[in-house]
Amino acid sequence: MHVMPNSEAKTRTIVTACVLIIGNEILSGRTQDTNLNHLARVLGSWGIQIREVRIIPDIDTVIIDTVRMIRSQYDYVFTTGGIGPTHDDITAECMARAFDVPLVENEAIAARIRVRPAPPDIMVSRLRMAQTPEGAVLIDNPTGGPQGFRIGNVHVLAGIPSIMQAMLSSLEHELEHGDIVRSCSVTAYLGESQIASAFSAVQQRYPDFDLGSYPFFRNDKYGTNLVIRGVDKNRMNAALEEVKAVIVVAGGVPENIVFE
Amino acid sequence: MHVMPNSEAKTRTIVTACVLIIGNEILSGRTQDTNLNHLARVLGSWGIQIREVRIIPDIDTVIIDTVRMIRSQYDYVFTTGGIGPTHDDITAECMARAFDVPLVENEAIAARIRVRPAPPDIMVSRLRMAQTPEGAVLIDNPTGGPQGFRIGNVHVLAGIPSIMQAMLSSLEHELEHGDIVRSCSVTAYLGESQIASAFSAVQQRYPDFDLGSYPFFRNDKYGTNLVIRGVDKNRMNAALEEVKAVIVVAGGVPENIVFE
Repeated sequence: MHVMPNSEAKTRTIVTACVLIIGNEILSGRTQDTNLNHLARVLGSWGIQIREVRIIPDIDTVIIDTVRMIRSQYDYVFTTGGIGPTHDDITAECMARAFDVPLVENEAIAARIRVRPAPPDIMVSRLRMAQTPEGAVLIDNPTGGPQGFRIGNVHVLAGIPSIMQAMLSSLEHELEHGDIVRSCSVTAYLGESQIASAFSAVQQRYPDFDLGSYPFFRNDKYGTNLVIRGVDKNRMNAALEEVKAVIVVAGGVPENIVFE
Repeated sequence: MHVMPNSEAKTRTIVTACVLIIGNEILSGRTQDTNLNHLARVLGSWGIQIREVRIIPDIDTVIIDTVRMIRSQYDYVFTTGGIGPTHDDITAECMARAFDVPLVENEAIAARIRVRPAPPDIMVSRLRMAQTPEGAVLIDNPTGGPQGFRIGNVHVLAGIPSIMQAMLSSLEHELEHGDIVRSCSVTAYLGESQIASAFSAVQQRYPDFDLGSYPFFRNDKYGTNLVIRGVDKNRMNAALEEVKAVIVVAGGVPENIVFE
């Protein structure tokens, strides 16, 4: 967590995160990832900003090197995928190696697994999910099924969206919350070139805000969503008024204003 | 492009790629990325394997450092986003800095922009899209609108999905194609622990294949998609038969077999 002065010399609290999606199935295109979008929205609502995402294959050396590299760069790391009982579930083992600690049976996770009886060979497979890095702390999965864990600032979550979401919910009060970056957007059916210069001038007057133009092409018409992102609500409203004026001056109509 | 011996001592041709998604709007959760999935499927059908994806913010130093780092690690890099005419479109400038070349007007792109008349101030904004790194080559966007470019092994594509897709299509015969990694999958309504041990044994017999188990939770039932990925069709069929037998022995029914 970093406390940084913003352009108005007030302090604001920035909490950053990196998301690490471990999954051959995402890289091959077999599966469309939706976990990132959920993580971004929920973490954003807690004032935790995702600054980077990496999607990597289920290869031990790649996972270990990546975790070692990113964990010191962000306040939090969230991983998804690879925590089940099959041979391709190597996340826990890789985290142990990334943190240079042994893989041990986590009592809290093992106890939850043993609640549901199973034949010995299946129980052995299931207990593989209790093998976590020494020092790992349970991340509760209230839906039952696999449990997550935290080691250091790395939060190891499931890849199944409903389970990942349940694990994330259980972290709400564990994580440090920062200032919430809000956004508002306004749509204009104009080419970006028609507003580029004036829009840039607004950005220069609001250096503590991110002003972005996200063009789209729908029903044979070009348009763009102009998005204003920042912390201070009053200044956001002032910037929005200026952006609306830019649209009107360019001959457009500000439409579909959304605050998030 | 690397030619590597596989476990059967035949050579196979592996062509690798990294995708770099440049976009605050993906990181903030405002937009659900769909470009990666399209790129993965199309490139996969050309025998180009995506090995890594990074999603990074619209920050010049981050873009430059990332491009410098990844471009030597993969045969191809594909970027999406940030090539329009507004102030937050900084991809071209960053590519020039990453390659240590000046930003110059690309004649092929400028000619296309000048085809459509506009008042002088708007034309100035539009021509910003013709500023590309020295040595960059046009990537044709047959739909009109913004054009992409290639510099070295880095292919700079639009963020708007329909335009990105059009640009990608125009690259089909420019890119080196490798061996196509095929996959087949079979679904079983079994817990992963019930098949973990036998499924791992199949993986050991097919070291040149990736066998993955991707669990899901639907209609209050756990199931898993068992996926076999590799190049050799005959061996894939043989591995599939073994995986089906694993499911049957565990008391399940192999369902929904899909070849891709």
